[in-house]
Amino acid sequence: MSKNSKENKIKPEEKIEELGSNIVRDIKNGSNPKFTTTARTRSNIIFDQKNGYLRLGSAKEERNFINVAQSKRFMQTIAIAAKCHRFVKEGLHTTIRGLFYQLKFSLGDDVDENVFSEQAESNPLIEDIEVALSLKRENLNLNANRKGVLAGNMRIIDTFGNEKIEIDCSKQGRSGWAIPSDVDNDIEFVDVKAKYVLVVEKDALWQRLNEDLFWKKENAILITPQGQAARGCRRLIRKLADKGLPIYIFTDSDAWGWYIYWTIKTGSINLAYIGADVATPEARFLGVTMSDLDKYEFLNKLTMKATDVDLKRAQEMLNYEWIKMHEDWELELKRMIKSKIKLEQDALQGPRLTFVGDYVREKIKNKEYLS
Amino acid sequence: MSKNSKENKIKPEEKIEELGSNIVRDIKNGSNPKFTTTARTRSNIIFDQKNGYLRLGSAKEERNFINVAQSKRFMQTIAIAAKCHRFVKEGLHTTIRGLFYQLKFSLGDDVDENVFSEQAESNPLIEDIEVALSLKRENLNLNANRKGVLAGNMRIIDTFGNEKIEIDCSKQGRSGWAIPSDVDNDIEFVDVKAKYVLVVEKDALWQRLNEDLFWKKENAILITPQGQAARGCRRLIRKLADKGLPIYIFTDSDAWGWYIYWTIKTGSINLAYIGADVATPEARFLGVTMSDLDKYEFLNKLTMKATDVDLKRAQEMLNYEWIKMHEDWELELKRMIKSKIKLEQDALQGPRLTFVGDYVREKIKNKEYLS
Repeated sequence: MSKNSKENKIKPEEKIEELGSNIVRDIKNGSNPKFTTTARTRSNIIFDQKNGYLRLGSAKEERNFINVAQSKRFMQTIAIAAKCHRFVKEGLHTTIRGLFYQLKFSLGDDVDENVFSEQAESNPLIEDIEVALSLKRENLNLNANRKGVLAGNMRIIDTFGNEKIEIDCSKQGRSGWAIPSDVDNDIEFVDVKAKYVLVVEKDALWQRLNEDLFWKKENAILITPQGQAARGCRRLIRKLADKGLPIYIFTDSDAWGWYIYWTIKTGSINLAYIGADVATPEARFLGVTMSDLDKYEFLNKLTMKATDVDLKRAQEMLNYEWIKMHEDWELELKRMIKSKIKLEQDALQGPRLTFVGDYVREKIKNKEYLS
Repeated sequence: MSKNSKENKIKPEEKIEELGSNIVRDIKNGSNPKFTTTARTRSNIIFDQKNGYLRLGSAKEERNFINVAQSKRFMQTIAIAAKCHRFVKEGLHTTIRGLFYQLKFSLGDDVDENVFSEQAESNPLIEDIEVALSLKRENLNLNANRKGVLAGNMRIIDTFGNEKIEIDCSKQGRSGWAIPSDVDNDIEFVDVKAKYVLVVEKDALWQRLNEDLFWKKENAILITPQGQAARGCRRLIRKLADKGLPIYIFTDSDAWGWYIYWTIKTGSINLAYIGADVATPEARFLGVTMSDLDKYEFLNKLTMKATDVDLKRAQEMLNYEWIKMHEDWELELKRMIKSKIKLEQDALQGPRLTFVGDYVREKIKNKEYLS
């Protein structure tokens, strides 16, 4: 992973400038200005079996200015690149929504405002630029939605407002440190002294473990993505794995929980274009599992009926090539399909509130996790 | 407000014990054990015009043990009270979901497990106890969903894990301090040196203002509820208002934005039973407004079509008794209904990213807000 996820050291503004220079050169030479990117079509999204994540294949796409079908998109792409160039030069961040409004604002009264009538139009073009220039949105100063908190023995050096702000993640009390959108630029993770990372699907369970000082007693880093992991959270988990820490994922045993796990582990279709940077194939699934029902008798009283979505999803997952590689997962899914029941991580609070931590401890100690 | 929102100093565990003692006394006396609470039915939810928030009226409800229609609920209520009593005694927190699982777990094999088959059954009974004992869920160690972050000139003393953790909200970098579920117990807000509180609907805009160090330059406290304000966030805004800080709310000019504003200001139907503690009638609506279109010419290019939901909601709001009191709001709503357009706060980034802060500054300086 480390090779692929290594930071690219050419400055983003220089890459955008190079794109612009090439287009100017094409125009001066009397040739049709063009722009090449890797195709992000479904057919070019592949599961990289060797490395264990979803990424783009090698199919390329070319956009030409002098082409009736492409010239509008070409112009839009360049407008976006110009905006991002300015954001980077100014050192200011916005979102893809903010970018959309800037584009609508600045094309002027002489240009049909419908050049960007919907944000759905500008979003894929941003990805085009990311892929073509081997940059991440974060390098273009475009923030994504953020979600998730962290507690544990590590410190953060956040260069913010011309100050180096130091945040001790073991001193964040009931709140935890809020994981930002961008965990790559002007931010460092130092003194990472923990033994492993535990990622807990639900904030409620994170709070439970945080109150028990689980991360302190276990010397772990305790993260909750608060549901599906946002881009920043996935990137952070990848970075912590790069530091050599084992990553354990702890979710419900249902369709949504599995989805959260597999997205962290193998990446997703939507982010296949930065697969290597956001996937953590080393991640292991700690629970809760169907097989917990054999070990923890009381859980049998606390199961829920699996929904149609759960069952359908389980059936689908049996066909995924990255699941077929894992016999332990096949057994889990088949058991759910047969028994038609599911299990929530919250159920571990049944006997006593502190049981959740004991469960995690025992699972890790006995290496009882799924691949 | 301060009188109503004042903390109740009798310990929660003592209140629960008193409830239990009364029932035991009833049984010993040979009378029918009973339990009285204030009705949370729609007909008993009133808008308190004098104080400006939604609260419960005076209608009472009595639950009797020896009553075929009530005995099951009576038993359930007592089971919940007993669980919460234990949580408080242990000093451990969980959620209403965790409580539900404890109830399912501990009623034993001899009791029909369907006593609590759905969490929807236990939730209203928790509210019964809150209302009957004049306690908030937070006092029963039941965490609610949390959401929202804060930056500004204030410090937090969070008594957590037997330590006093100090968090400087001006040193939280890009992240901000994550607002917890419970902002009342074992937590203090000190050195609140800001001049006012700005509540920004969208996290994206919060990040924009945070990056500009808006809160530092303006000496403000910058909060985002990240959409609809969670219970903890609403309670925190109330507490900051109690410290004498003006509260300005900054949302989209659409149905969802208005809903966020009015929920913070007057409270909500669901939380009417703790209305005085979560509503902030002093809050003012800063924008964005339909009338911004007259002042900021460029915004006319950046409007969106109002949806049917927006228009329907605007029409409904004209009939709310707490809106009818405000002529400025009537004008806004009628303008939206007539023009069928809406405006997002993100649009303020059109001319330049830093315009958002200038907008807020000017609005506050000129006292251009809605009531």
